[in-house]
Amino acid sequence: MRTPVCDELGIEFPIFAFTHCRDVVVAVAKAGGFGVLGAVGFTPEQLEIELSWIDENIGDRPYGVDIVIPNKYEGMDSEMSGDELAEMLRKMVPREHLEFGRKILADHGVPVDESTDEDTLQLLGWTEATATPQVEVALQHPKMTLIANALGTPPADMIEHIHAAGRKVAALCGSPYQARKHADAGVDIIIAQGGEGGGHCGEVGSIVLWPQVVKEVAPVPVLAAGGIGSGQQIAAALALGCQGAWTGSQWLMVEEAENTAVQQKAYADATSRDTVRSRSFTGKPCRMLKNDWTEAWQTPGNPEPLGMPLQYMVSGMAVKATHKYPDQTVDVAFNPVGQVVGQLTKVEKTATVVERWVEEYVEATTRLDELNAAAL
Amino acid sequence: MRTPVCDELGIEFPIFAFTHCRDVVVAVAKAGGFGVLGAVGFTPEQLEIELSWIDENIGDRPYGVDIVIPNKYEGMDSEMSGDELAEMLRKMVPREHLEFGRKILADHGVPVDESTDEDTLQLLGWTEATATPQVEVALQHPKMTLIANALGTPPADMIEHIHAAGRKVAALCGSPYQARKHADAGVDIIIAQGGEGGGHCGEVGSIVLWPQVVKEVAPVPVLAAGGIGSGQQIAAALALGCQGAWTGSQWLMVEEAENTAVQQKAYADATSRDTVRSRSFTGKPCRMLKNDWTEAWQTPGNPEPLGMPLQYMVSGMAVKATHKYPDQTVDVAFNPVGQVVGQLTKVEKTATVVERWVEEYVEATTRLDELNAAAL
Repeated sequence: MRTPVCDELGIEFPIFAFTHCRDVVVAVAKAGGFGVLGAVGFTPEQLEIELSWIDENIGDRPYGVDIVIPNKYEGMDSEMSGDELAEMLRKMVPREHLEFGRKILADHGVPVDESTDEDTLQLLGWTEATATPQVEVALQHPKMTLIANALGTPPADMIEHIHAAGRKVAALCGSPYQARKHADAGVDIIIAQGGEGGGHCGEVGSIVLWPQVVKEVAPVPVLAAGGIGSGQQIAAALALGCQGAWTGSQWLMVEEAENTAVQQKAYADATSRDTVRSRSFTGKPCRMLKNDWTEAWQTPGNPEPLGMPLQYMVSGMAVKATHKYPDQTVDVAFNPVGQVVGQLTKVEKTATVVERWVEEYVEATTRLDELNAAAL
Repeated sequence: MRTPVCDELGIEFPIFAFTHCRDVVVAVAKAGGFGVLGAVGFTPEQLEIELSWIDENIGDRPYGVDIVIPNKYEGMDSEMSGDELAEMLRKMVPREHLEFGRKILADHGVPVDESTDEDTLQLLGWTEATATPQVEVALQHPKMTLIANALGTPPADMIEHIHAAGRKVAALCGSPYQARKHADAGVDIIIAQGGEGGGHCGEVGSIVLWPQVVKEVAPVPVLAAGGIGSGQQIAAALALGCQGAWTGSQWLMVEEAENTAVQQKAYADATSRDTVRSRSFTGKPCRMLKNDWTEAWQTPGNPEPLGMPLQYMVSGMAVKATHKYPDQTVDVAFNPVGQVVGQLTKVEKTATVVERWVEEYVEATTRLDELNAAAL
């Protein structure tokens, strides 16, 4: 499955693994793929610690960092610092929403956090003001060779800055229209994510979206995202003209991941019909397991989700509680995952997954060859 | 792209074309594929005329018929004849819904049909009582070798009856659970349709659904549906273990189709984000172009769509008006199509489409071979 993008990045297989766990980044790299650390939940100081750990453990292999600068969000036109912006946004969160969030938790027997608003209402890296310091940290690490933006075209000066540091820029998209904007802005690798995908995604299915994006931006390389959790699915992506696979869900179900046993059991038990695109955690449509939290925020009569990044300032309390009380929170936890969750039934070693995908890819392409040979 | 199912059915390419136009059935067969006539809108007498025409024009090539027997619908447990059932169901349609439908048409300057309820509120073939006579007609035609059910597992006695007549049974599904029910009932060919698909479809995307169904029912052959409109997409389906492609949207955009120029222009102009899964025409989620009719039925405060087959007894007036006043009705017409509509930009000859798909398939599999060779 070697494609030009493998040579450009110096990797063996075009398997890109999005994860929030540094151990998974390292394990994927060692197995021949490319690990990408999701930075949104880390302060710049925490991110520095994570990347230093990766540097020490990854040998001479490259890796990436994923940030989130949406093309539209509350407060995007301000010139404020991250702290000032957080202060302003905190005041915009209606009491009604906070109380509704606390009630959902209380109704599920989850202890409600009584700390101050400043502790509770976290802005995280969902804005340019808070993502830019993350980029600065990332660029201090020479083996960090790719920065991906999960939710829009990165700002022009940021692309220029990353290129000047000799690194590449990637960006996700859900339509050929967005892909064209990325390509025109100088993005090096475009990730076309179908509506099957976990996390933020559009509505157009992968089988339709991928070839449209490939055609739109050629010769810019396109990675396929949304619905990939096997070598057969990678073969399908390459048949449709993509140069590799950008994957996320599978890496929640590896031994190296920090996900709790309760959450991994929820993923293992879920079918592909148990996910929903919901605005209830981040404010933008984001695919995750359906549960009582997602249902509550879409029931008519209840408060409607706020925009990004305000909604996370509310849902952050559920995310925090999940880390603190994993056994009690599965019904209200944030369990982002794609429809491919229906294929995930057990926790495996990262290296085992990569090996299996390569074998499955070879089997799939061999089967096509045999069909073609038999037809002659 | 020759697979075992080609030999079983005696066709050159595993390209299955669902269409409501007899001319397309014949043109696809002559190009080496397998045409399937959607019977739902025909009375048994009309269907007899269509199939006789196909028999006269198709040479010695086989073809299929698609019927609709949902697994759940209003009146399904009655033992009534089709006429009795229609009479009963007509009384169940609320006046409010009929008036709302007429108002949408009137608001768009479409002349409102003043004929009697019996003329207007058509039951069509959406039930076992009305589909069974269609099956009887189809079985009188020896070149008609496959009957597909679009919306559920066909009744056991119907499967037995079709098998006794030496024909095969196919059925669509949107989950491995439904696929298992089909296989256990003795369905010969299972069609896995992803949520991208036009017409009735589920929510799981093709790239995820197809391999799950293949795994669930092996060795029963699976056809891939939902999002296929090119040879690359067929290659992807075969890489995922399917034996062929069940396609629909493309055949709305061929010269042999009866679709009006106005409708074909609407399809040509649409992007993949312009479709919606709506209950506003048939009562079950069905993918079509978004327009004022689909919007009206999902606006809070307006009447909600009825179940199947009641909703079509209301929307039938819009379908009828579309045939009568095609220039005025594009905003309220029933334009079923999949997300693949974004790839469809012009009207072509059926034979040209089939040739192109075969060439694209060969290109896609050749590209995979070259990647594999370069990696060695």
